[in-house]
Amino acid sequence: MAGTDRSRPSLEGGPAIVLVEPQLPENIGMVARAMLNCGLTTLRLVRPREAWPHDKAVAAASGADRVLDAAQLFGSTAAALADLDYVVATTARPRYMTKPVLTPRDAAAGLRTRMQQSIAAGILFGREARGLENDDVALADAILQVPLNPAFSSLNIAMSVLLVGYEWFTATDATPSALAMPKDTRPATKAELFGLFEQLEAELDTCGFLRNLQSRPSMVRNLRNMLSRAEMTEQEVRTMRGVVTCLVEGRRKPPAG
Amino acid sequence: MAGTDRSRPSLEGGPAIVLVEPQLPENIGMVARAMLNCGLTTLRLVRPREAWPHDKAVAAASGADRVLDAAQLFGSTAAALADLDYVVATTARPRYMTKPVLTPRDAAAGLRTRMQQSIAAGILFGREARGLENDDVALADAILQVPLNPAFSSLNIAMSVLLVGYEWFTATDATPSALAMPKDTRPATKAELFGLFEQLEAELDTCGFLRNLQSRPSMVRNLRNMLSRAEMTEQEVRTMRGVVTCLVEGRRKPPAG
Repeated sequence: MAGTDRSRPSLEGGPAIVLVEPQLPENIGMVARAMLNCGLTTLRLVRPREAWPHDKAVAAASGADRVLDAAQLFGSTAAALADLDYVVATTARPRYMTKPVLTPRDAAAGLRTRMQQSIAAGILFGREARGLENDDVALADAILQVPLNPAFSSLNIAMSVLLVGYEWFTATDATPSALAMPKDTRPATKAELFGLFEQLEAELDTCGFLRNLQSRPSMVRNLRNMLSRAEMTEQEVRTMRGVVTCLVEGRRKPPAG
Repeated sequence: MAGTDRSRPSLEGGPAIVLVEPQLPENIGMVARAMLNCGLTTLRLVRPREAWPHDKAVAAASGADRVLDAAQLFGSTAAALADLDYVVATTARPRYMTKPVLTPRDAAAGLRTRMQQSIAAGILFGREARGLENDDVALADAILQVPLNPAFSSLNIAMSVLLVGYEWFTATDATPSALAMPKDTRPATKAELFGLFEQLEAELDTCGFLRNLQSRPSMVRNLRNMLSRAEMTEQEVRTMRGVVTCLVEGRRKPPAG
């Protein structure tokens, strides 16, 4: 719940997502799902067109019921923003108003900074068909515009909430890119990798693959380079050694059966 | 079109978006819309469940018909990837495979770099209900995972395509945050702003608002600070001067009518 004392909204659910006159309950449900994906839980609805609550919203929320259950209804945009301190209005087109226009990334950073200072923030989204009225935008501190394909920039409202929420979430999320590896293995040491090189090159000398002594150094270098690039695990080096052994044994022995 | 010569896919449409066994035509349509939002136009479908093409996909694409019209059908994931050089597989959960796991931002940067070198790239997305099979993931060079709320991370497939496409688009989009301003005005010069200060302070001296000489300096400072922070335009300074004049005149004159 955003709290019964509306003069001090909870900041735990991130900035309030304020939908002005949303038309389709399905879209409200998809917004709730996108919000919870991004850790946002405070949803405010200004004069939704259909009855509220609505079954189609629940179906579209795919389990984000807690966001819908806590949603608050308001009779005007001003009422929905009254207890907030800082509001960003999401628009797709220029508004001929003097106002800061922020990218989602910069807006998210600004929202994070403010909320760390207990400044209650909200993000305003317009009705599906035509976005926010200029009178709504005028109530906000800044405009948020998503830079997308200018030839095809119309975003579904839930898509728009997702992009803004994603930037909000990743503004402090520290998940780095990484190398995934099963728990029961570890990267091969270079000594283990060099053992594979030696085994392979000895067998290639034996079978004649490296018989051209002029090209041998560059062929060896290329093989080593390729196998190094794979960043093998200890298990994978053992597998490759088994592969080499099996190929050699299969060649030496008569085929079974 | 991705080109009839499949051995050299066009790179103009960005990385190919490859959907493996998509179930709902509506989702394919929403994917097409999200793709075109992000300037992506190469769509490949591996064994879609419903007939293709499909009216429901067209309806959900909201005008992104050119992406649907150019979509190519494939009988297997391997066939859909055959003419590509670098493939990233999008997954929501860990796969117990040794493989780089990239954030969307890092994946987008890597895709941009590769495509600038004419390396044909693709991004693999799994079926709605359960994502990609491990056999599909094994065909990719890297895994892409979107860092979102770990307690509620299930994304609609079109949402997933949008986030990845958004990072692709913004990886080179240079749109900065900015101050929007109507074309027929300009920021006020400091001289114009100081003129407003002087007018206001003179009137406040006259009406007695600043009569306490001890607090006068800090009150003046606070007023100037507040008005400075608004980054007024030249038009707005003139408006404010008119507001001050009107308030004063209204006080001096008897009310009209």
